[in-house]
Amino acid sequence: MTSTPRIDNFWAVVPAGGAGTRLWPLSRQASPKFLRDLTGGGRSMLQETFDRLTPLVNDRFLVVTGRAHRPAVREQLPELPRDSVLAEPSARDSMAAIGLAAALLEVRDPDAVMGSFAADHVIPDAVAFGECVASAVEVARDGWLVTIGIEPTFPSAAFGYIHLGEEMGDHPGAYAVRSFVEKPSVETATEYLATGQFRWNAGMFVVRPTVLLDLLADSDPEFAGALRAIAADPATLETAWPSLPKIALDHAVAEPAATAGKVVTVPSTFAWEDIGDFDSLAALLEAEGQATTVLGDASLVRSTDSSGLVIPAAGKMIAVVGLDDVVVIDTPDALLVTTRARAQDVKAIVTALKEDGRADLT
Amino acid sequence: MTSTPRIDNFWAVVPAGGAGTRLWPLSRQASPKFLRDLTGGGRSMLQETFDRLTPLVNDRFLVVTGRAHRPAVREQLPELPRDSVLAEPSARDSMAAIGLAAALLEVRDPDAVMGSFAADHVIPDAVAFGECVASAVEVARDGWLVTIGIEPTFPSAAFGYIHLGEEMGDHPGAYAVRSFVEKPSVETATEYLATGQFRWNAGMFVVRPTVLLDLLADSDPEFAGALRAIAADPATLETAWPSLPKIALDHAVAEPAATAGKVVTVPSTFAWEDIGDFDSLAALLEAEGQATTVLGDASLVRSTDSSGLVIPAAGKMIAVVGLDDVVVIDTPDALLVTTRARAQDVKAIVTALKEDGRADLT
Repeated sequence: MTSTPRIDNFWAVVPAGGAGTRLWPLSRQASPKFLRDLTGGGRSMLQETFDRLTPLVNDRFLVVTGRAHRPAVREQLPELPRDSVLAEPSARDSMAAIGLAAALLEVRDPDAVMGSFAADHVIPDAVAFGECVASAVEVARDGWLVTIGIEPTFPSAAFGYIHLGEEMGDHPGAYAVRSFVEKPSVETATEYLATGQFRWNAGMFVVRPTVLLDLLADSDPEFAGALRAIAADPATLETAWPSLPKIALDHAVAEPAATAGKVVTVPSTFAWEDIGDFDSLAALLEAEGQATTVLGDASLVRSTDSSGLVIPAAGKMIAVVGLDDVVVIDTPDALLVTTRARAQDVKAIVTALKEDGRADLT
Repeated sequence: MTSTPRIDNFWAVVPAGGAGTRLWPLSRQASPKFLRDLTGGGRSMLQETFDRLTPLVNDRFLVVTGRAHRPAVREQLPELPRDSVLAEPSARDSMAAIGLAAALLEVRDPDAVMGSFAADHVIPDAVAFGECVASAVEVARDGWLVTIGIEPTFPSAAFGYIHLGEEMGDHPGAYAVRSFVEKPSVETATEYLATGQFRWNAGMFVVRPTVLLDLLADSDPEFAGALRAIAADPATLETAWPSLPKIALDHAVAEPAATAGKVVTVPSTFAWEDIGDFDSLAALLEAEGQATTVLGDASLVRSTDSSGLVIPAAGKMIAVVGLDDVVVIDTPDALLVTTRARAQDVKAIVTALKEDGRADLT
C-alpha cells in the first residue's frame, strides 16, 4: 500500500446533515447516520470520512453541520480546532452550507482548492480515493468545477448520473460534463450503463472557492453576495442565514455550469457505497458463508434458517428463526422488523410517527 | 347464561408447572405461562382457571406448584388459604404432584371427588365446562377414573387421543375408554376423526382420591404407599419426595387402568385451547379484519402489509413492514422474530441458550 501525499492548499469541506430516515430506528434526528458506526469498524461515518481526508489536507478540514449536532461532531473529532466545525443556524440545503465554507475559505486562503465530500459515504480504499482527488484538484486549479464521477456497478434508479463528454486535452483522464441527469428509471439507467458514458453523481465537487461563488453569482448574484458578506463579517451569520435560498448545490450551480460547459469530471477508480437503507447496508456488510449479517455484538444474535441483517443495538438477545432476507433493528426505544426488499418503506414509518405525535422516536 | 351450582365434596386440583418453552421469551422458567395473561383479558391463565373452577368448588381448591413459584401463585390467588398452595420440593412429573393432592384429600375428606385441571388451558365457556365436570363427578362417585374427552376440531398431531368404547348403561352420555393413544401422525389423526370414536386427551381427570391411589397401587404399590405416608405425616414431605418416581399420571395410572376397563370418558361440550406455541396463541387471539394481532398495548405496534402476532412486552414501539404470518415477541431482555409456521422451533432456542450458559434468559 502506497501512501498519498498531502495536496497543497487543498481543503476538505464536509457537510454533515440529513437524518437518514430510511435507516430508522438506528439513525435518528438526534443521532443521524453520519454520527453512527454503520460498518462495525469502531469509527462513525464522519470519523471514517475524516480519517480518509486527513492524509490529503492535514488540518485543512471544515465540517458544516446543524447547530444541534455541533457538540457531537466536536466530540467525535477532538483533533479539530474549534473554528473548523461550522454550525448552520438552521438547515438551508447544500448550496448555503457549502457556499458558506467557500466564502470563508476565499477570505482565508487565496490559493485554496476545496473538495466537498458527504459525511456518510463508504470508501474502503483511501489511497485510490486520494489519488483520484489529487487529479481532480489539479484540474480544479485551472478554474474548472470538477466532479468525481463514480463508476456505476448496477443500473441504479437511486442516484443521479453524470453524462460525460470529450476527454480534456490538457488533463488526460478528465472529461467535460455534458449534463447532470436526475434519477432515471432502471430501464434508462441500463441504457446509460451500456454506453459507458455515464457516471453516478455522488455530490463530490472539487473547485476553487472563488470559482464556485462566481458560478453561483452567474445564476443568483444576491445569494453569492450574501455568502461573501457573511464571510467578511461572521457576526452577521445569525441574522443573514434565514433569508438564504434553500437549494441544492447541484441545482444552484452544477447543472447550469454544466450547460455552460464549465464542469469537468474525473472518473473514480475506487469502490464507493452510499448506505441509503438497510438493504444497501446489508449488501455492504454481508460476508461470504454467513447467511445472517450482524452489525454489533454477534454473540447476541441466534439465527436459524434465516438470512438478512440483524442489529442488536439494544444490547439484548435476539433469536431469528425461519425468515429470509429479514431486517431486524433493535434499539432501546424502537424495534423495526422488515425485509431487505421493503427497506425503502422505512421512511414512511418515520413520517407516520411524526404525524402521530411520536417525533420523539424519529 | 345459567350459573352452575356448587358440586358437593368436589375438589379442584390444579397442577401448575411447566415452563412453556415454546412460548419463549414471553414465558420463562421464572415466569411460566400459567402466571401470564396470554389472552389479554387482564387475568393470568392460572387466575382464569381459578375463576372457572371456584363456582363449582367454592374454597375446595388446591394448587400444586414448584417451590419457586409458590409466592407468585399466592400473590395471584390471594383468596386461597395458605395450605391450599402445595409446593413440590422439586419437579417430579404429574403422578407425584396429583398423587400428593389425592393422598392429602383422602385424609381430609372421605367423600371427596377430585378433578385435575391444568393451569394453562383456555376454556371460554365456564358454564358448559361446569356442566360437563358435574356429569363427570357423578360418574366418578361410582368409583370410575373419569377423563373429559375434548372434541377434536382438527386432526392434530400435538395431542394424545382417547379411544371411546360403549356408552355406559347407568350413565348415559359417558363412555368406556378402550385406550389412550399417544400423539399420532396427522394421517392417523385424520382417520381417528373420521370414525367419531376419538377425543383429545387434555389430561383432565375426575376421580375419588382413594380410587386414584388404589389404581396407582395396582401398578406401583410402593409409590402409592409413599404418597399416603407423606399425607399421614406432612413433615416427611421434604425427605420422602426426592425418591418418588418421575412419571406422568397418564402412564402410571390412566393407561393401565384403561386396559383394565376402569376408565370412563365424558365427552366435552365446550371449546378448549391449549396455548402450546405462538401459532396457537395467534389463532386464539386473531380477530376478523385484523391482519396483525397484538397482545398488549396496540398503540405500540405499527404494522404495514403484514400479518401475524406481535407482543410489545418490552413496552417499546415496534414497526413491522412487509412480513406475513410473522411472530415478533419483544421482552426487556430478549427478542424473538419468527413465523407462525416455525413456532414449534422456539423450544430449540431455549435448549441452545441453556447449553451456551445463558440459562438466565430461559
